[in-house]
Amino acid sequence: MRYAKGHGTGNDFIIVPDADDRLDISADLVRRLCARRTGLGADGVLRAVRAVALPGAAATPSPAQWFMDYRNADGSIAEMCGNGIRVFARYLIEHGLAVGPDLDIATRAGIRRVRQEAAGMFSVDMGAVSTGGSGWATIGGRRCAGLAVCVGNPHLACLVSEPVADFDLSGPPDFDAAQFPDGVNVELVRVIGEHAIEMAVHERGSGETLSCGTGAVAAAVAAAVAAGEWPGGRLEPWVVHVPGGSLTVAPSMTASLLTGPAVIVAQGDVAADWLTPRPGRGPREPAGEAGARPVPS
Amino acid sequence: MRYAKGHGTGNDFIIVPDADDRLDISADLVRRLCARRTGLGADGVLRAVRAVALPGAAATPSPAQWFMDYRNADGSIAEMCGNGIRVFARYLIEHGLAVGPDLDIATRAGIRRVRQEAAGMFSVDMGAVSTGGSGWATIGGRRCAGLAVCVGNPHLACLVSEPVADFDLSGPPDFDAAQFPDGVNVELVRVIGEHAIEMAVHERGSGETLSCGTGAVAAAVAAAVAAGEWPGGRLEPWVVHVPGGSLTVAPSMTASLLTGPAVIVAQGDVAADWLTPRPGRGPREPAGEAGARPVPS
Repeated sequence: MRYAKGHGTGNDFIIVPDADDRLDISADLVRRLCARRTGLGADGVLRAVRAVALPGAAATPSPAQWFMDYRNADGSIAEMCGNGIRVFARYLIEHGLAVGPDLDIATRAGIRRVRQEAAGMFSVDMGAVSTGGSGWATIGGRRCAGLAVCVGNPHLACLVSEPVADFDLSGPPDFDAAQFPDGVNVELVRVIGEHAIEMAVHERGSGETLSCGTGAVAAAVAAAVAAGEWPGGRLEPWVVHVPGGSLTVAPSMTASLLTGPAVIVAQGDVAADWLTPRPGRGPREPAGEAGARPVPS
Repeated sequence: MRYAKGHGTGNDFIIVPDADDRLDISADLVRRLCARRTGLGADGVLRAVRAVALPGAAATPSPAQWFMDYRNADGSIAEMCGNGIRVFARYLIEHGLAVGPDLDIATRAGIRRVRQEAAGMFSVDMGAVSTGGSGWATIGGRRCAGLAVCVGNPHLACLVSEPVADFDLSGPPDFDAAQFPDGVNVELVRVIGEHAIEMAVHERGSGETLSCGTGAVAAAVAAAVAAGEWPGGRLEPWVVHVPGGSLTVAPSMTASLLTGPAVIVAQGDVAADWLTPRPGRGPREPAGEAGARPVPS
């Protein structure tokens, strides 16, 4: 099995090319691949399947050439990932599997347009954004007020005045379960300059992470609301500093644009006898390392 | 740059073949390779150099064919690693670079004999062991009595009666700096059966890890001392359960034998433009993840 490893602002992925949809990537295999010490190590797996190879493709042909089959490190299926899709696009272009700079990529959240910008930078249309009411979260024992933002998935973006590194995001935040019955991603956001914010995030189901694409969009929207710019027409982009690097977000109610780096670290082959281990041979590392507190770089 | 990734009981390594000693593996490159999210991710790098290619090899020819140039995730140079050398030996044999089952491998701690046993299991002569006096360490606020054991590097093996998982090894233990001026690896050891122990370890400079080869030897020696078997002649082997799997140690004052699995996960090529990044392009992840508390599997 071929693979590549890449990351976008410290959110890292194993890319598995499977043009003809032949691989059976079980949840268990995803967990094993993503295990940091006993596997390859990643936050998730991005399987690249040609859209025409998908079941039912003949009936509903897609304008997208490739489908991004995204799985979380715990083996669960996920819709979209603003960091992952940039890495995915770079992989396709570098391997001659697609022609840039503009690329339509099919995801479970619909087709997303990705554009290759200069020098390893990619932008992606993150789709529609809507704001909800105000809410609250308790983070490391501190109660913060926030704004509910839907970026396909639910967020609560809390503007704070202290450095976000001062908060302890290692444990899960407490929040109003009536407001967020399916859980919520919680961002801490601080304005640090002209259209510049820093953000830390606790992702629903993953814990604190180095970066979160939809979270960056939610954070920029909350900052734009606080600046009296939202809702508006053509909004100025915000630079969003996350622990794993920097992203730029041009917020929009219909098509927020997320721009950031995509890095391919390596590529290779998974060892055949690792792929098919004999049962009962040694323990398995817990999936991912969600919940571990990353040290901001 | 070619590489392979492998692990022994959850202690993971990037193996870099460099037969002719041509690569300049700087401390910075080691840190970047070992970074979990922005690099390949590993506890250390094992560079494979033919002994004859080393400077001065003509003057002092080595009976070993290969030298294991071992670096810790923080870029520092290390002598030997009981888990790493098994992975190193498997790599050499599987790639036709050496012929098993018996292999002499040169390390900074001298030449070590490794033997390929059945089904991915390797044993390694860990050299001489000596016991020192008793000592103490404070681990997660609990004071434990222990036995000083030197396995080339210093250890304090503390026999406890509670499950070792009950202790909090996330922080550095406190110890008698007069007894261990260069620091010490601290093991918590509990006898769980006939010649069977479980062990948790806080490695000097690395924090809590899933496994430690010299620590397993020290733990087995401490258990043998407590059982009244040490010093002795031919000692029965001990099974040492570590968070990352199981090892077997036959303790000996002159040549303790450590046996355990060696797994090759994958192999590939590091991306050329990742190897030579432009300066100032994005942040770097802190080296390794030492100090993060691994969840025992």
